Amino acid sequence: MGEKEQEVEIIRLLKSGPGYTSGQLLSASLGVSRTAVWKHITALRAMGYAIEASPSKGYRLREGRPFHGVELQSVLAGQAFGCQVHFFDSTDSTNARAFELARNGAPEGAVVIAETQTKGKGRIGRKWESPAGMNLYLSIILRPSVAPQGAQGLTFALAVAAAEAVLASGLKPAVKWPNDILIDGRKTAGILLEMDSEPDRVHFVVAGIGVNLNIKQDMFPEYIRQTATSLLEQTGSPVDRVAFTANLLASMERWYGVYLSEGFVPVLEAWKGYFRSFGKPLKVTFFDHAIEGICAGVDVDGALLLERGGRVERIISGDVEAL
Amino acid sequence: MGEKEQEVEIIRLLKSGPGYTSGQLLSASLGVSRTAVWKHITALRAMGYAIEASPSKGYRLREGRPFHGVELQSVLAGQAFGCQVHFFDSTDSTNARAFELARNGAPEGAVVIAETQTKGKGRIGRKWESPAGMNLYLSIILRPSVAPQGAQGLTFALAVAAAEAVLASGLKPAVKWPNDILIDGRKTAGILLEMDSEPDRVHFVVAGIGVNLNIKQDMFPEYIRQTATSLLEQTGSPVDRVAFTANLLASMERWYGVYLSEGFVPVLEAWKGYFRSFGKPLKVTFFDHAIEGICAGVDVDGALLLERGGRVERIISGDVEAL
Repeated sequence: MGEKEQEVEIIRLLKSGPGYTSGQLLSASLGVSRTAVWKHITALRAMGYAIEASPSKGYRLREGRPFHGVELQSVLAGQAFGCQVHFFDSTDSTNARAFELARNGAPEGAVVIAETQTKGKGRIGRKWESPAGMNLYLSIILRPSVAPQGAQGLTFALAVAAAEAVLASGLKPAVKWPNDILIDGRKTAGILLEMDSEPDRVHFVVAGIGVNLNIKQDMFPEYIRQTATSLLEQTGSPVDRVAFTANLLASMERWYGVYLSEGFVPVLEAWKGYFRSFGKPLKVTFFDHAIEGICAGVDVDGALLLERGGRVERIISGDVEAL
Repeated sequence: MGEKEQEVEIIRLLKSGPGYTSGQLLSASLGVSRTAVWKHITALRAMGYAIEASPSKGYRLREGRPFHGVELQSVLAGQAFGCQVHFFDSTDSTNARAFELARNGAPEGAVVIAETQTKGKGRIGRKWESPAGMNLYLSIILRPSVAPQGAQGLTFALAVAAAEAVLASGLKPAVKWPNDILIDGRKTAGILLEMDSEPDRVHFVVAGIGVNLNIKQDMFPEYIRQTATSLLEQTGSPVDRVAFTANLLASMERWYGVYLSEGFVPVLEAWKGYFRSFGKPLKVTFFDHAIEGICAGVDVDGALLLERGGRVERIISGDVEAL
């Protein structure tokens, strides 16, 4: 067990009972000296854990938990999605880190989480605002046995998972085609899939997701203040980021499994349950032009259907906004 | 002008005339001292250039040229494919280097060439034998505005380019579906396309190509000695690797342009001109099983058609061998 794994194990043991856990038990479980245990306790306190120490009874973890790698690992232990947690206080982009890890052989389910991103990426080369201390910026490595075309289906599966995680907070999420999550018409989460492939097989996919959790409206930069929102703003109470992350990863794991084992049909059905644009006017922006029309639904392969002058067009790629 | 660019410029100037080029002219053209010119001449000789020096007349380049970055750059100057040449005496994999360069913003047409690869990659995770001093191992960065599905067409365009380059050596190449080049039924070149993309757009493609040029039959490792060949073995005379590279890149640039401007139809037509498997028995190996049948041609999208028991199956992905 490495230093970090020992810290994760101490937290797991402290959480396992309601009362105190003796230093002797910790020392025996980890196979290290009691001095080493004490050093770890000191380190864990520095990370933000409130740990009480009693000379006669041992250690006890008080309520409240910090958002960092040790806590996430202690919560995610045993889940396939989250089997590895690479936590950064700050990084350029969690997708970029996950890409590096994947190229170096990191397994499916390995996760990169950062407190802040200096170059957070959105779709179509856009920026994802990533202030520290309040939101979730997560990327996960997937290794599906599909051709690159199959990755578009994954986009929908992960959008369903993200919507489900927001729904669990008591809110009513909607999907914006293909993979943003809106609450009350405002953007709450975005998903960016990037992959490394040959023309006929995917080597790996990195799915990045950013979720506005505890950011306040006035902290959004001007250019998105009218179009973005957060779970805090919508529910009025702060989100436990660790719990949300664990919940989201469990949903992602489930819907990824559905897609791989049952295909696109059940995924698209679930996705449609969150899709509220049918019959509404939409604007679709492409690289060099934009078109407007009425949403006529979504095709069997996930293409957006847009009615314009009596004809229905299939949109494969583009940026959609409600009019 | 950096040190390397100065060396490229000296070679270009020495090549521009049949006689001697004065040290004064070189010094003036580069804007450096004659001592600096002399240092470059010494460096160029160490690279393998035969440069004569006359105190009264200047410098003259004798025939024969080494295979390295300076020579390649002097020959490729002005071509879009080869606009940058990143030359390595040895690297793990030219595709891996090109991927790094592309992620850091290298332009379309930038090329990585290595004298030898320690982890040369072929399709389907296979190894590409890459001994030093005799063959070509090249990767090029492409930035087409296509969806990932569009990359399969590129595979065919680059196979046509490679076949064309072999044809120019006076040989009769054949394509093996989808993108190996055979001479006399033996493998001479292979192409590996890898890409970085979102589900609906390609960020970049790295096309790697390995060509057996001057390797002798008995230098192939045992496991491919019966199935591989080289241009040297087929023509009986050694190939000028720099000229072959320049030729190949020009062909690649042309067919890439055809594909982007005119689409897949003319590319597939050209590809079929090199396809000699029609009506022949083939074995197609997949991840976990293999099938046999008679080649019934190639579908409009490039899928291989295989007739088995009166039915024709479409093969999208798999490893093909003649029976």
